[in-house]
Amino acid sequence: MTSATGGTTASGPDVDGVEAIMRRGGAQLRERMARTELHLERVTARAGEPLARHASATVRAGGKRLRPLLVLVAAESAGGPPRTIRGEQRLVRAAVAVELVHSATLVHDDLIDGARLRRGHPTVAAVAGREAAVATGDLLFSLAFAELARNRCPDQLRALSDASSALAAGELLQREDAYASRVAMERYLRRCELKTAALFEAACRLGALAAGDGSQALADELGAFARRIGLAFQMLDDVLDVSGPVERTGKARGTDLLEGTVTLPFILARERERDLASFELSSLACPEQAEALCERIAATGALDEARERALAVVAEAKSRLPASLPDGRSALLDLVADAVVERYR
Amino acid sequence: MTSATGGTTASGPDVDGVEAIMRRGGAQLRERMARTELHLERVTARAGEPLARHASATVRAGGKRLRPLLVLVAAESAGGPPRTIRGEQRLVRAAVAVELVHSATLVHDDLIDGARLRRGHPTVAAVAGREAAVATGDLLFSLAFAELARNRCPDQLRALSDASSALAAGELLQREDAYASRVAMERYLRRCELKTAALFEAACRLGALAAGDGSQALADELGAFARRIGLAFQMLDDVLDVSGPVERTGKARGTDLLEGTVTLPFILARERERDLASFELSSLACPEQAEALCERIAATGALDEARERALAVVAEAKSRLPASLPDGRSALLDLVADAVVERYR
Repeated sequence: MTSATGGTTASGPDVDGVEAIMRRGGAQLRERMARTELHLERVTARAGEPLARHASATVRAGGKRLRPLLVLVAAESAGGPPRTIRGEQRLVRAAVAVELVHSATLVHDDLIDGARLRRGHPTVAAVAGREAAVATGDLLFSLAFAELARNRCPDQLRALSDASSALAAGELLQREDAYASRVAMERYLRRCELKTAALFEAACRLGALAAGDGSQALADELGAFARRIGLAFQMLDDVLDVSGPVERTGKARGTDLLEGTVTLPFILARERERDLASFELSSLACPEQAEALCERIAATGALDEARERALAVVAEAKSRLPASLPDGRSALLDLVADAVVERYR
Repeated sequence: MTSATGGTTASGPDVDGVEAIMRRGGAQLRERMARTELHLERVTARAGEPLARHASATVRAGGKRLRPLLVLVAAESAGGPPRTIRGEQRLVRAAVAVELVHSATLVHDDLIDGARLRRGHPTVAAVAGREAAVATGDLLFSLAFAELARNRCPDQLRALSDASSALAAGELLQREDAYASRVAMERYLRRCELKTAALFEAACRLGALAAGDGSQALADELGAFARRIGLAFQMLDDVLDVSGPVERTGKARGTDLLEGTVTLPFILARERERDLASFELSSLACPEQAEALCERIAATGALDEARERALAVVAEAKSRLPASLPDGRSALLDLVADAVVERYR
């Protein structure tokens, strides 16, 4: 999997990054995250058995909740939600909707990849079969839109549905390119945009739109920031697949390559070592061969270059944060950017 | 498959019913249907390769477009869309969104059922694999919400997302109940509500909401009408699975039973013949045995009772149409009800 979420374990340093954001965000951010968590449970539990069981288990298996956090942080940067119960509810709903779409994608990705475990828990497909996995993913998508529709803000819905279309397109692009060892850089970047950056962008857009001072222009600017952060997030995730170590990522090195997914380190290594330019991923027959390929890639220096490129994208994201943001309001966004970079340290 | 859409062939009598509606609806209805068709093509084509190819093929493979027709007819009953280009566009978008959700469901149903053909065309799963089928269905769902979001009407989005959640829940309920030969009537009816009636309801709600005179109250009333029609549609579809004939349905008699799906005729026959009460669907080993079971069910008189129950539901739907509708405005809705009944004649 090149899924942005499959890789790092819960104890990875990116969690430190998230904790730094939570510390800085204070009691209010922690409370909103806690309410997001509760509301996620409530929404999936309402779905009725047996779907509720699968949907709840998927959402509970959790992860870092980076996307809902982005929604809340973006809203804070845009002046915070209106100071009413309803304003708070709308913000939490937006955060929940983004995480539901993300969860739907995970269920369907695991189904497609035939994955039995995610974050140490059995996947829906493993527990209940392919049929249940298809339906559970569909339900999570539907719940996301149902939840967001309650906010009565068409711009929010548009942002989420655009991201959700992008996710599906990205998934299919990845399948279409499987084992295409000479996939071009542009195509790789396009896939990252679709599979990862689009939902990051939607998260920040939603946060900005749910804020009292939020305008469409600010939503565009924060969306562009999140898009870059998402791209860097995916690039670094792809570095981790090659660099490991296993104890950190929870999966064998080169898992993506073995599954035929061409990622940034391989693309850069191809340019650096003539022999790799003609290497066919389809020739990889076992995890040991994939690991050997990872060594070859690392030996070219491609991993350092890939990290540098990702860092450059993060730096650009930070530098382009709207100067119009009042003092201090961009601090949390900077911390989000740092949390993404922390992932590979 | 008990999917409401899998069964009858394009030449079935329900097409006559649809034609009667089109005749009565006149040039305006025909033009709106034609624009719906064009817009469906445009929306799926915009998705970018390779998804656009699969999505377009799915939508093109078509069918009777009963659900978009319901949107347009409901709008007409509610006084028609506002007489502006934008009003017309919004109505067509609502019709397109409903058909996109329906198409998404077909792609995922076919994937789950392992179906190779639908309406004589190879399924996405057969042409491009399971991965592509999952992603294509996800994309069609997303496009539906993206399209409807452009209408900037949260009530419309809520109606569609509720239906889409119901579809997923119904699919999973059906899988959960597979081969459960003693499934209760209530559970069967609940499944029909989720898998079929909910999207019919959404279609009429959307039509009413896109109309100039449309109110939430009228949307509720037309939604309740459509819900009943959808329930009857599914009941009659389930009769056809048992009654055949093959030339009409395009599939062997008892296909649902062989796949372990308990439907109305079997439930009623169980009550009428003691031996059937202990019959286990899992004992069916081949199409011939399924056909023999169909004969046994037919011999109990259960098919007639099932038809009568469906007709009673249709009659109730018609009788409860709001008396407040101006003269003539319910005529098209009556024809829709008749078209559903025509299915099994």
